Amino acid sequence: MLKPLPLQNIRITDPFFAGRIETARNTAIPYMWAALNDSIPGVAPSGCISNFEIAAGLKEGSHVGYVFQDSDLWKWIEGVAYSLATHPDAELEARADAAIELAAKAQLPDGYLNTYYTINGLDRRFTNLRDNHELYVAGHMFEAAAAYYEATGKRKLVDMSCRVAECIMKHIGPEEDKKHGYPGHEEIELGLARLYGVTGETKYLALAKYFLDARGTEPHYFDVEAKARGEKPGRDWRRHPLVKYAYHQAHKPVREQTEAAGHAVRQGYLLAGMTEVGALTGDMTLVQAADTVFDNIREKQMYITGGVGATHDGESFSFNYDLPPERCYTETCASISLIMTAARLNRVHPDGKYGDIVEKALYNGILSGVSLDGTKYFYVNPLEVWPERCERRQDMDVDPERLGWFGCACCPPNVLRTLTGLGSYIYAADDSTLLVDQYIASEATAKMNGAKVTLTTDARMPWDGQVSVRIQADKPAGFTLMLRVPTWAKNFSMTIDGQVAEPVVENGYIVLNRLFGAETVVALEFPMEVRFMSASLHTPNYAGKTALMRGPLVYCLEEKDNGPQLWNLSVKPGTAEARFDESLLCGVTAITADGLRDEMESGLYTESVPGRNAVPLTFVPYYAWGNRGKGEMAVWLRRA
Amino acid sequence: MLKPLPLQNIRITDPFFAGRIETARNTAIPYMWAALNDSIPGVAPSGCISNFEIAAGLKEGSHVGYVFQDSDLWKWIEGVAYSLATHPDAELEARADAAIELAAKAQLPDGYLNTYYTINGLDRRFTNLRDNHELYVAGHMFEAAAAYYEATGKRKLVDMSCRVAECIMKHIGPEEDKKHGYPGHEEIELGLARLYGVTGETKYLALAKYFLDARGTEPHYFDVEAKARGEKPGRDWRRHPLVKYAYHQAHKPVREQTEAAGHAVRQGYLLAGMTEVGALTGDMTLVQAADTVFDNIREKQMYITGGVGATHDGESFSFNYDLPPERCYTETCASISLIMTAARLNRVHPDGKYGDIVEKALYNGILSGVSLDGTKYFYVNPLEVWPERCERRQDMDVDPERLGWFGCACCPPNVLRTLTGLGSYIYAADDSTLLVDQYIASEATAKMNGAKVTLTTDARMPWDGQVSVRIQADKPAGFTLMLRVPTWAKNFSMTIDGQVAEPVVENGYIVLNRLFGAETVVALEFPMEVRFMSASLHTPNYAGKTALMRGPLVYCLEEKDNGPQLWNLSVKPGTAEARFDESLLCGVTAITADGLRDEMESGLYTESVPGRNAVPLTFVPYYAWGNRGKGEMAVWLRRA
Repeated sequence: MLKPLPLQNIRITDPFFAGRIETARNTAIPYMWAALNDSIPGVAPSGCISNFEIAAGLKEGSHVGYVFQDSDLWKWIEGVAYSLATHPDAELEARADAAIELAAKAQLPDGYLNTYYTINGLDRRFTNLRDNHELYVAGHMFEAAAAYYEATGKRKLVDMSCRVAECIMKHIGPEEDKKHGYPGHEEIELGLARLYGVTGETKYLALAKYFLDARGTEPHYFDVEAKARGEKPGRDWRRHPLVKYAYHQAHKPVREQTEAAGHAVRQGYLLAGMTEVGALTGDMTLVQAADTVFDNIREKQMYITGGVGATHDGESFSFNYDLPPERCYTETCASISLIMTAARLNRVHPDGKYGDIVEKALYNGILSGVSLDGTKYFYVNPLEVWPERCERRQDMDVDPERLGWFGCACCPPNVLRTLTGLGSYIYAADDSTLLVDQYIASEATAKMNGAKVTLTTDARMPWDGQVSVRIQADKPAGFTLMLRVPTWAKNFSMTIDGQVAEPVVENGYIVLNRLFGAETVVALEFPMEVRFMSASLHTPNYAGKTALMRGPLVYCLEEKDNGPQLWNLSVKPGTAEARFDESLLCGVTAITADGLRDEMESGLYTESVPGRNAVPLTFVPYYAWGNRGKGEMAVWLRRA
Repeated sequence: MLKPLPLQNIRITDPFFAGRIETARNTAIPYMWAALNDSIPGVAPSGCISNFEIAAGLKEGSHVGYVFQDSDLWKWIEGVAYSLATHPDAELEARADAAIELAAKAQLPDGYLNTYYTINGLDRRFTNLRDNHELYVAGHMFEAAAAYYEATGKRKLVDMSCRVAECIMKHIGPEEDKKHGYPGHEEIELGLARLYGVTGETKYLALAKYFLDARGTEPHYFDVEAKARGEKPGRDWRRHPLVKYAYHQAHKPVREQTEAAGHAVRQGYLLAGMTEVGALTGDMTLVQAADTVFDNIREKQMYITGGVGATHDGESFSFNYDLPPERCYTETCASISLIMTAARLNRVHPDGKYGDIVEKALYNGILSGVSLDGTKYFYVNPLEVWPERCERRQDMDVDPERLGWFGCACCPPNVLRTLTGLGSYIYAADDSTLLVDQYIASEATAKMNGAKVTLTTDARMPWDGQVSVRIQADKPAGFTLMLRVPTWAKNFSMTIDGQVAEPVVENGYIVLNRLFGAETVVALEFPMEVRFMSASLHTPNYAGKTALMRGPLVYCLEEKDNGPQLWNLSVKPGTAEARFDESLLCGVTAITADGLRDEMESGLYTESVPGRNAVPLTFVPYYAWGNRGKGEMAVWLRRA
């Protein structure tokens, strides 16, 4: 399996992302720290740090927030670690060290660390793995520990994590005398794999594999523990596509699951964990199973923005081709879990289709989750908004405006760690193969067959398709350079050291297998026309409609630019013009196109036919919507 | 106020309805009786009769079903009474008498009669008027009593009802020492008005007016009684358009309510009650307030089928122009409550707009509630069905198939009483004015200024627009005959005694003010072209779409005739042909039109544009959908 290049070896210079990462570093990190400390007026209290102080015996009080509240600190530390890896910051590091010290005080002698149970009663720990997130929280702790160690060389959080893992292994596992359980919310599988990565201890990998192998087998552990709690087993998921524990992806053994189901973030973390653990243990049946479900998502259950989760009931996948734009869930975290999966599958067997999903979700469904100033967040990322409907229909669960923080604050730190850890999505390598997956301007170094190779990627995505990659080796080195060809880039052109070259494309990658010397410059030009997309006729949601894309970006109409009642607008395909506007939404390429607006004064129902007046339409990138006050938005509109 | 002609004076000969009424009489009446007696295998148990037997002390057991279960018997008796009025049936009457005898045994010495509280604890009676339907059940009892007395001359149920009313007045009313309450589910207002009608006791009318006057005033009675129960007042209606008791139309005094809100059936019964009580007491402010809300429904909150209630949350109205076709509630009972309101408003101040709503709801959104064989029912009447979505999305509450019976069986008996009482919607009159509102073939007699007038209406609605009304007076009589002109009938023609006549149309009625002699024949021809309807551009739900209508009927596409994925179909306006098919759906006029079907093989998202192949489309009347197995259905489709 290929590995991402270490973050320390990557300096992101990208005009599009560098500023966002800086905002994350300078705004989101301190903002979230303040939120975790309940010092932001007017936003839902987190209680996170306070819970640790109470659990550590430093103060009196009761636990605040969800059973998984601790994970917000762990995700913050993970995000901070990625930032420190590329931008050392003694003050920030000291703050993180102090938080780790505080957490250490809350860890119990047997290694257990979860403030919810420490405060509310240890007798109930490990009695409800289905609902109570203990293993999920541990998983985020392990990820934070590995990231922080890799960034700072400090082992303390790793050591604390090992003791947590030992505690879990004392209670849960395949052995006769242990609980044969697994998490109701997947995540620890990834965390254990990373803990294995920084310790070399295979027992952590074995535990992760056990959680995957045990999942959904009979007798069903969630029923076993429910009975032990004196509750009746099973669960009523009414019209849920796959009844009984599909919400937890535990309706059948993971190798028998073929369609995405249940809570979308859990599904994504499961697939990422299956891929990682499968590859590390050499069990390719896990990877194949992950691939099958990933393809189901990509081909039948994904929004054009890379959003996933078509219903707010259970924050879940719905069923094939059911993709309503106005009442999707498409949680920011779910898209993040999707790219975590895609990137891992790609490292196992590189294919351009994976990088395409990373690109699609990154530039659309994930970035839409955070405001341009980096301080407000969407939990849900709808593709169509009529504010009155969001606010007045009780069967809607879509906020028409970004909020500062959430009682359940999973998305903000998830976006943080994605942005500060962005480098890990750009390149991947082993000794003899080097992948360039995302054309994000950056400088990086890699060891290829003993040579030190410096990569300089120059790009102006998502606005411009001209890309160059400079490869400089300190001594001649033979290896395979693979450059991803975005599926949206038809008839692209390539030059090598200024000479037009005929690309060899395999599995969506330009493959250059050659001896690299002092300097090689590969220049690529990916044409960026505006594309009028259609949806499969199997989905009822977009019949007769089109969505505009340019390069990796999905575009949308906003009331601010096009007036109210966007549903009365239609667009003439082929009329689009793209123009970069420095002053609009922090600088975006907007698209103008010829449109028609239905016009008619009538009663509720009439024999009259609406007239259609020509109007200019202005489309802005979907990721930037909702930054100019509350109003209507639509990604899909009728073809005129 | 005009009155409907007595049912005894009307004999319905209509080819469309006579068979349906006979089915109701021969199938629905015995079927429902069996259901009330829990003797239908495989359908939800009613417990209704059993509850009365327990309350009467005839057997042991506990109450089954809802707090309003008794009302199913009262509605059955009301429906039976209307049937007996026109079709005497000694055996059926004996069965109804026996049921009344049983109920009499369950009535308490103080007049109280409600099996739920008699069985579960009288100490709690009248402590939760908001939720527990005691007054609603009494209202249905009063309506049944009046209907049964008018049909059979038997007073027993009227006497029982008066004792129930006295009991209520002992506990509830404006006086200092009484509870200043009113029903959470309106209905008793109508019942009391009818009880006044058969007894002449104005105190019943006064109580009805009290309930209307007290409604929504401060201090809010629902809070007062909630506090008395030790519960916290108020209620969380989250995104509900009008918070705090709008569900019960108690968010403000009834005269200040301007938009339909809350539970749709309750809203309808309230408006009907306001109209009836306002007219009988001469308080026109009540009628005006009812008119205001009725117009809001007609102009902004009604489906094209006459369905009302755009959300299943609270079985409620949503907000202006929010009319989703796939997730409406449009309960059959709600449309019935709408025509009850329309007919009453029309009797106060006749206007064709009222009869139009009666016609629209009757031929579409109400008839769709019952299967062609009269034994299966829709509670919810959607305008678009994708069965997979109904079954697999948890945020849907739409059954794709009719069911035999419901635990909450309000709709079936409501349809029964509407069909057996259909005559009351056809004609209305006072001494000097005679209205013909619905062109349903029938013979009727009326006393007009001392003369006996026989009316013979010949019509073949909804298939044919040719209508004749024969008026025969036993002695010359001057009066005003008013014949409704359907809004769908443009440039109709009229002859009187064979001579072409120029109609005088006022408020949607042809007005004939003249001396009627031995025989006058008014012949009308209402043209019936297929109409391609549009919806107001204020609603986002039907942009670019059309719905076909012919005469009073709304049409739909079914998968059975047009194949799956109806969303890929569009229709060419102006291409429609109508043809009566005796063999289709018990005989309907089907519409064929030229259509296009989008065709494309593609992945989930593509730059390809669907091809469009010409296909013939077959539309069937909406009321008849869902009688040929489970499948897709759509009323609105794209204009080609």
